Amino acid sequence: MSDEQRTRQLRVALAQVDTRVGDLAGNVDLVHRWAARAAGAGAHLVVFPEMTLTGYPPEDLVLRESFARASEQALVGLAADLADQGLGGTAVVVGYLAHTPGSGPAPVDRAPTGDEDAPGDANPRRGAPRNAAALLYGGEVVVRYYKRHLPNYGVFDEARYFVPGTELPVVRLHGVDVALTICEDLWVEGGPCGIAGRAGVDVVVSPNASPYERAKDDLRLPLVRRRAAEARATVVYCNQVGGQDELVFDGDSLAVAPDGQLLARAPQFVEHLATVDLAIDPAAVPGRREGRIGPMTVTRHLLSEEPLPAFDPRPGSIAEPLGDCEEVWRALVLGLRDFIDKNGMPSVVFGLSGGIDSAMVAALAVDALGADRVHGVALPSEYSSEHSLSDAADSAQRLGLHYSVVPIAPMVAAFRGSVELTGVAAENLQARVRGTLLMGLSNQHGHLLLATSNKSEVAVGYSTLYGDAAGGFAPIKDVPKTLVWELSRWRNARARELGETEPIPQNSIDKPPSAELAPGQQDSDSLPSYEELDAVVADYVDRDLGMAELLERGHDPAVVARVLRLVDMSEFKRRQSAPGTKISLKAFGRDRRLPITNRWRESLPSVREGAVP
Amino acid sequence: MSDEQRTRQLRVALAQVDTRVGDLAGNVDLVHRWAARAAGAGAHLVVFPEMTLTGYPPEDLVLRESFARASEQALVGLAADLADQGLGGTAVVVGYLAHTPGSGPAPVDRAPTGDEDAPGDANPRRGAPRNAAALLYGGEVVVRYYKRHLPNYGVFDEARYFVPGTELPVVRLHGVDVALTICEDLWVEGGPCGIAGRAGVDVVVSPNASPYERAKDDLRLPLVRRRAAEARATVVYCNQVGGQDELVFDGDSLAVAPDGQLLARAPQFVEHLATVDLAIDPAAVPGRREGRIGPMTVTRHLLSEEPLPAFDPRPGSIAEPLGDCEEVWRALVLGLRDFIDKNGMPSVVFGLSGGIDSAMVAALAVDALGADRVHGVALPSEYSSEHSLSDAADSAQRLGLHYSVVPIAPMVAAFRGSVELTGVAAENLQARVRGTLLMGLSNQHGHLLLATSNKSEVAVGYSTLYGDAAGGFAPIKDVPKTLVWELSRWRNARARELGETEPIPQNSIDKPPSAELAPGQQDSDSLPSYEELDAVVADYVDRDLGMAELLERGHDPAVVARVLRLVDMSEFKRRQSAPGTKISLKAFGRDRRLPITNRWRESLPSVREGAVP
Repeated sequence: MSDEQRTRQLRVALAQVDTRVGDLAGNVDLVHRWAARAAGAGAHLVVFPEMTLTGYPPEDLVLRESFARASEQALVGLAADLADQGLGGTAVVVGYLAHTPGSGPAPVDRAPTGDEDAPGDANPRRGAPRNAAALLYGGEVVVRYYKRHLPNYGVFDEARYFVPGTELPVVRLHGVDVALTICEDLWVEGGPCGIAGRAGVDVVVSPNASPYERAKDDLRLPLVRRRAAEARATVVYCNQVGGQDELVFDGDSLAVAPDGQLLARAPQFVEHLATVDLAIDPAAVPGRREGRIGPMTVTRHLLSEEPLPAFDPRPGSIAEPLGDCEEVWRALVLGLRDFIDKNGMPSVVFGLSGGIDSAMVAALAVDALGADRVHGVALPSEYSSEHSLSDAADSAQRLGLHYSVVPIAPMVAAFRGSVELTGVAAENLQARVRGTLLMGLSNQHGHLLLATSNKSEVAVGYSTLYGDAAGGFAPIKDVPKTLVWELSRWRNARARELGETEPIPQNSIDKPPSAELAPGQQDSDSLPSYEELDAVVADYVDRDLGMAELLERGHDPAVVARVLRLVDMSEFKRRQSAPGTKISLKAFGRDRRLPITNRWRESLPSVREGAVP
Repeated sequence: MSDEQRTRQLRVALAQVDTRVGDLAGNVDLVHRWAARAAGAGAHLVVFPEMTLTGYPPEDLVLRESFARASEQALVGLAADLADQGLGGTAVVVGYLAHTPGSGPAPVDRAPTGDEDAPGDANPRRGAPRNAAALLYGGEVVVRYYKRHLPNYGVFDEARYFVPGTELPVVRLHGVDVALTICEDLWVEGGPCGIAGRAGVDVVVSPNASPYERAKDDLRLPLVRRRAAEARATVVYCNQVGGQDELVFDGDSLAVAPDGQLLARAPQFVEHLATVDLAIDPAAVPGRREGRIGPMTVTRHLLSEEPLPAFDPRPGSIAEPLGDCEEVWRALVLGLRDFIDKNGMPSVVFGLSGGIDSAMVAALAVDALGADRVHGVALPSEYSSEHSLSDAADSAQRLGLHYSVVPIAPMVAAFRGSVELTGVAAENLQARVRGTLLMGLSNQHGHLLLATSNKSEVAVGYSTLYGDAAGGFAPIKDVPKTLVWELSRWRNARARELGETEPIPQNSIDKPPSAELAPGQQDSDSLPSYEELDAVVADYVDRDLGMAELLERGHDPAVVARVLRLVDMSEFKRRQSAPGTKISLKAFGRDRRLPITNRWRESLPSVREGAVP
């Protein structure tokens, strides 16, 4: 049987790793270790996530020429080092930041870019950075692919940074044709996958940095299936895992055959090496083209024609997606852990009030860091109820964290002896005394202070700036209060299943929420029910609906008016809030960019305006 | 003499107004008033700034369909109302947010946009918002122009929001051909001005929202001259004036003839109506084209062919650009005033330490708001020197602002009686007690708290989070310490020229800077000289230079290493800092987006890396 007729095989590994932004040397080392593991598992091709060497998203580091040059140098060095270590025979696809030297400072008069249809005019003060992936083999950088579709919505600003690519390289490895794409390219029908389908390829590799959002994994498999069908090729989708400031990446890497069969799926929220064995039937392979196809140019690069000696294929392992609560919990744990560890913080501290928010943050922190790195401080005031202290102590005892009690009365009295503060000013004073105490402990002991505000509070500004809003990280900032309760119940149920102590006091879950800044105060004095509040916030904040649509959705008009007013008025607080892990469709932070100075208030169109078509 | 041979005249008004973001009704009212003024001055065409009706930048309000619909309705209503008020015979060019209804929620699988070369893939969850300008005449919206070049660098995110236009409308008004463009379109050689030049027009109007930056006005006139030459037409550049969060717009509106003659120039930092009388010699007018020219389609719209009866032209008035110090001072004053007034705050409060930063903020605040709206509080500690209190009192007396003294010792003692705080933790405690006191006064009396940090401090994190960094606005956040001194000297000199009391105590300018958080502490104990520091910050932060370039520029290697480490380590503080007026090439805030979690540290390339090409 000639080579042309033999089935071509390839073992592809998906290295779902947790990179660090800006850590070129560390990320190069990570690629070394995982490439060696993949080669040890018999892989011929290893795929890493998007921008492996720089981490993702590197944000304005991209504009630093020194960084871009270092990324290019790291890539070339990595190719050589892999070969030096005997890994030159394994093809490795890594993401990096590519750089064409700039033309110096901005000309006053900008020259046309050559891409006159560019809708986004990027910074003229730099060269041409690109979001790139390279295939390394035999000590060389064999091909470089430049991402074509640059997301510029939500948390993404890629049109700020990158120039889009126009070339689709296809590498023949052991007789198998492998095309390179990156992340967003996969979301566009008729994009690089469609072009690969017209060119004829066997495999499309897709390094990704696709942040976690609730239920996003439900979208990925159907999406990858459609692209595999369009490309008439197996799609190998490798996503990064880990936390980076406001984002957490869940992994969930996939390989899907052209007929839609799921060949492998990596578990979420852990580093993982998945392998998939491909067998390409030469009869099923269409004709091969190169050159201009649509808006791209397809290039072909021969590494090895000879098919591999036949080997017994192993079925890929397929992880089950997690349930909704477990998925969110693990997103929050990983987001918190990576923020603390990647920033080199030894430990965390926070106010433990006996309420559900701080009880949940305590449980998350212990899951993320272990009890020995977690410090809870009860800061009772004259308005604190008895159950506040007992529930806080219960929480600390269940989790085994470091616990102390510092009554705030002497500090509050000292302030009130110096200036007259009444009403809201007196309420906020208590919160700020707590914030100052906790920041003192943070500075004294090197703990990072966690803010315990939830999304409902952040939305309506139900928190004190520099008080309970103080902190370097806000683990549940994107978790609405109703979900805080649901997750807490789920976490306790999971503990019961495992025969462990429930980490969250039932009383913290059950009791009516209160800020306890005034006698007998309850959240329901100043806010609608959290069920109503969260439903309006989801529609107004996450979905950007206006007044007419909100009322059409059946919300109570009085509740809508109240919630929208509070959301609109508290933008200045959010602008100064700590980052927290995004889990929703739209999180406060980079994802939602509203002016502070903003007179727009939603209202129903007037009759006069309504009459205009 | 036939119409074809007669000189065509037109009086064009530039309405350099201060709009409010989100205030559609207020901005419509503003257009009414200024259009009436312009008509009263005999203008036939009035040009308003970019996005007049929505204010600029509206940021994510653009994604709210209700807002975009309201903008469209406001435009149509405005056209009708202008005619109702007898202004239908004056052509009015206003900016607005245009909206094509969206196709509902994001499809999982995005359809190609038709613009397959788009480098930025905008949010698929919306319709097609556009940055637009319309010409209103006779009660109708005559033409709509959609901005072609969308800036997506620095503080600009227009590729996030807008779809670029492809049509260049030209309106014939009293026999004069007027083309519409918007802002960034003017910065692109071969862009809409070049196309207008090939099509043949008499006037190009350019509504702008071009933020102030030091020395930017030195760029505008040569730029507009080049475009006027390219367009072979008079360019009428109308820029907005006023503050919006981090940005301040300086106006500096211009009209320039095709031969480069400056016809009119509006003063900076004030609302102003400039007029310019044009006389178009028919012999000088080239042939007229329409249809496809380059990437755009030129359309022609006849309003009136008949030239106006001849009138005596009046020379336009030409304002002298301000000197550097006065320009910066007035930018800071206007940025502060508009932030306070547009957010409806009655008054401001801040800590008055006797140091130069708070003394300068006090002078700015009094210039911006008047002394009666300004409250300074001295908050002395055991480490405060005698001159601190006397200089603070001197500052208050010179300015006539409200002044009080609250010693912080009792509060500091109360904290230190409850928890052990030493070293930096004890220093920061003092700053946070001050922050808590000032926020208490803010809450009690409705003052907005101003943070007095300067750019040098913000760069190296030489401030206490929730302490002296606390505040809703930071007026000198983008002013390096060396410029704080220079501006203070300039402001005193200006007062002397005017025979007024110098607003800033000379002793505050002269004495060595100190945070006074420990005995005998001076800034020079922990920082390089401010001359060295500011020079490195300008190169590292504003110009994004790497280590090799910084050393090439002659900075001391030890100073560079120390400053870069401090800048890199304090990103978490900056993320929570108040907005302040941008005056530099690159301000902290929207202009510079670095990750908090970031392991990149500038160093010289190693020999090994250096050897790789």
